[in-house]
Amino acid sequence: MNSPRKTSRIGQLVQHFSQLIDQAELAQGARLPSIRAAAKAFEVSTFTVVQAYDRLVALGYVEVRKGAGFFVARTSPSLEQQRSTAPLADVYWLLDDGFHPAADALQPGGGGVPESWLDEAGLHLALRSLGRGSGRIADYGEPRGVLALRQWLQRHLGERGVPAQSEHIVLTHGASQALNMVINTLLQPGDCVLVDDPGYINLLANLRDHKVKIVGVPWTPQGPDVAKLDELLVRHRPKAFFTNPWLQNPTGASYSPAVAHRVLQLADTHDCWIVEDDVHGQLAQNHQPPLAALDNLQRVIYIGSLSKDMAPSLRVGFVTAEPAVAEALLHYKMTTGLYSSQLCEQLTLQMLNDGNQRKRYQKLRDRLLQAQVFARQQLQRIGWHCWAPIAPAPYLWIGSDQDGFDPVALTRAGLKQNILLSPGCIFRPDLEAAPWLRFNAALSEDPAVWCFLAESQGLKPSTP
Amino acid sequence: MNSPRKTSRIGQLVQHFSQLIDQAELAQGARLPSIRAAAKAFEVSTFTVVQAYDRLVALGYVEVRKGAGFFVARTSPSLEQQRSTAPLADVYWLLDDGFHPAADALQPGGGGVPESWLDEAGLHLALRSLGRGSGRIADYGEPRGVLALRQWLQRHLGERGVPAQSEHIVLTHGASQALNMVINTLLQPGDCVLVDDPGYINLLANLRDHKVKIVGVPWTPQGPDVAKLDELLVRHRPKAFFTNPWLQNPTGASYSPAVAHRVLQLADTHDCWIVEDDVHGQLAQNHQPPLAALDNLQRVIYIGSLSKDMAPSLRVGFVTAEPAVAEALLHYKMTTGLYSSQLCEQLTLQMLNDGNQRKRYQKLRDRLLQAQVFARQQLQRIGWHCWAPIAPAPYLWIGSDQDGFDPVALTRAGLKQNILLSPGCIFRPDLEAAPWLRFNAALSEDPAVWCFLAESQGLKPSTP
Repeated sequence: MNSPRKTSRIGQLVQHFSQLIDQAELAQGARLPSIRAAAKAFEVSTFTVVQAYDRLVALGYVEVRKGAGFFVARTSPSLEQQRSTAPLADVYWLLDDGFHPAADALQPGGGGVPESWLDEAGLHLALRSLGRGSGRIADYGEPRGVLALRQWLQRHLGERGVPAQSEHIVLTHGASQALNMVINTLLQPGDCVLVDDPGYINLLANLRDHKVKIVGVPWTPQGPDVAKLDELLVRHRPKAFFTNPWLQNPTGASYSPAVAHRVLQLADTHDCWIVEDDVHGQLAQNHQPPLAALDNLQRVIYIGSLSKDMAPSLRVGFVTAEPAVAEALLHYKMTTGLYSSQLCEQLTLQMLNDGNQRKRYQKLRDRLLQAQVFARQQLQRIGWHCWAPIAPAPYLWIGSDQDGFDPVALTRAGLKQNILLSPGCIFRPDLEAAPWLRFNAALSEDPAVWCFLAESQGLKPSTP
Repeated sequence: MNSPRKTSRIGQLVQHFSQLIDQAELAQGARLPSIRAAAKAFEVSTFTVVQAYDRLVALGYVEVRKGAGFFVARTSPSLEQQRSTAPLADVYWLLDDGFHPAADALQPGGGGVPESWLDEAGLHLALRSLGRGSGRIADYGEPRGVLALRQWLQRHLGERGVPAQSEHIVLTHGASQALNMVINTLLQPGDCVLVDDPGYINLLANLRDHKVKIVGVPWTPQGPDVAKLDELLVRHRPKAFFTNPWLQNPTGASYSPAVAHRVLQLADTHDCWIVEDDVHGQLAQNHQPPLAALDNLQRVIYIGSLSKDMAPSLRVGFVTAEPAVAEALLHYKMTTGLYSSQLCEQLTLQMLNDGNQRKRYQKLRDRLLQAQVFARQQLQRIGWHCWAPIAPAPYLWIGSDQDGFDPVALTRAGLKQNILLSPGCIFRPDLEAAPWLRFNAALSEDPAVWCFLAESQGLKPSTP
């Protein structure tokens, strides 16, 4: 991750115009420069201008009049308030920037486990042992992915109560491709879906681009608020509920058994698909059975990863569902991207079968719990609080009682010191303001992180 | 590729209803069973029925009346003709089946080079040498993909005249992901695009699913018919022309220099993007410069593969374009699938730098030319003809002068003998009939293929 950090040219244009509009230098109803004129004036391509204008429309700054061009939107009170509570153009800019962090940036708001915790030794061993073998591994393999790995999954998921058959498991380029396949197979633009609120940032971005109506189901530390879920199912008749029940990103919380049961009951009553994103399934494996186990894969579409926590560079995920859905997902996989990598799947199989798998996950769980204990102590000392109970997850959902606490302003201050935070709003369906931050306990060992947070509270940091 | 061959349940339903309609057992205007009723009657899920009904609508058999259900379409003369000249339901079934060939099937209609020609030795060597190294390779890496591989591409493309900068190259999960990224970034449903006719089957399927208007540009053995291209650009004002100029799939033909120049001139005049799919660029590298070289990456978006001809299981492709387009493609890559596999990119780099790369491609070119010479001799002997001149490509576009020559009927006869052919119609934008087949010279060494073709012509085969 060593590209220099810089604001994208699209982001610069968005900032430029949103500032002009905020400062009323461009009046309501005023016409923006034509795409060609703007491209010439800013020395960018028309493509860049189109992308920036589209983003300004999405942010409510600009409206399109068919055939006439782009105009500064007439504001409504709710729009005014939205703009004042969350500077959305900035949030978009942060989203862009998250993909290009500076090499030396501290990333307490980042995702996943630290690179130094990954299983480099196991991966190197797998490379050598596959390299010494004589099997044919250069060809595409099978559309669903390597059979032996799907059979491993059938056994493994079976032990957790999920009755997945190998022929209805489709291996994917990471869990992300699986999510994207489900979105494109199940949903038409204009359909309504429910999501966790807060939820997975990349899922939200994908759903937005897919032009579906996104409704958030508020989370409690025990999972989604089921009374609210019932209400939303009645009101919106959504096609699917995308949820991440275990060690959730961004909160680190998990469903309670009662919530799991009730969510499935409600989905049944209201005929709604459940898309269960269990990307940390391997970490959570000592916990309760997945939703797919309770439901017997009737209306649950189950997604997981075999690489994320150990060697993300392998990019091996999977999805399983009832046979007709699995078949439609396979069709989408092949049409839009052909085969997943047989090679990565064979390497994954080597790692799963090298005899150290169970120990490795136990070690990772222990490290994550230790990191949470440390981070929670530090947070408490400087007057912050954690939303969910301790769990072997990288994520903490944290807030502060300080007057005027503003996660976006804090994030902007962090950027100046090369400390990347993740304000709560970026995890919400409409980027609504939220008095929280996602905090990665496993990426926060550097004292500079704690100095920064303590100083932002007007306190001296403790020495770790 | 050892799944048993079977017709999908969706395909079975499509066949069932299309036959009833063809045989007038379901009259024009008759209502199809409701989705729930059909699901119950055929013991399949409602999801399967929806997919099958959608396919029947796409095939022109059925129409939807909003709120009322699915009805047998009233036929028009052109529809009648379409149905009689190409049994489309069968074609769809073939498409599905291509993904599940029987383990022992002969595949003279298949894609790519034979598995036994791939570079297993080079891949095994790369695994061992990366496995012995001490570099960090387990993490996600960079959003654009491994920098050293992008720098290799910058040099390599530079030598071919394409001025691609490493920061504007995005590595992808195979060239297929790159094509899909371009489709989703450039095109809105309802847009019009031009494609090669005949062209790449998976691209066509993807564009159809994306609900864009697809117009075919007829090919000559020297590339697209430029007079026709001019006419289509004027009439349809398409947003982009997706083309595969070198060793084209399915014909094996390439653009002549004059055609390359004229296509770019026309694209410029009519402000149309060119999406250059140069998936066999490594094979064609002694040939003319790519379109992207003539155009300096102004309106050409250039796609290639580094794994397809040597070790497809690596799934390493790339795309490059002007900076703003490259940035938009990167955004789409990350939103819908996150990172490409750093591991596969590192392995590809090992293979490219192991000192045997040039020799390997020369050997592959020689083998492909030999296979073409052999296949062309055999074809001539049994009275078939080849459309394009000889080239180091797997593909031949072949036809027969025999009366009543019917590629679809021949394909169906082949299936009974476990010989998979590819009738010309499946490579056409609207699956129009075509008196041709795609033939893979490199997959046709088995005498059974020649026996079958000769017998289908009423001739005795020669002994190879």
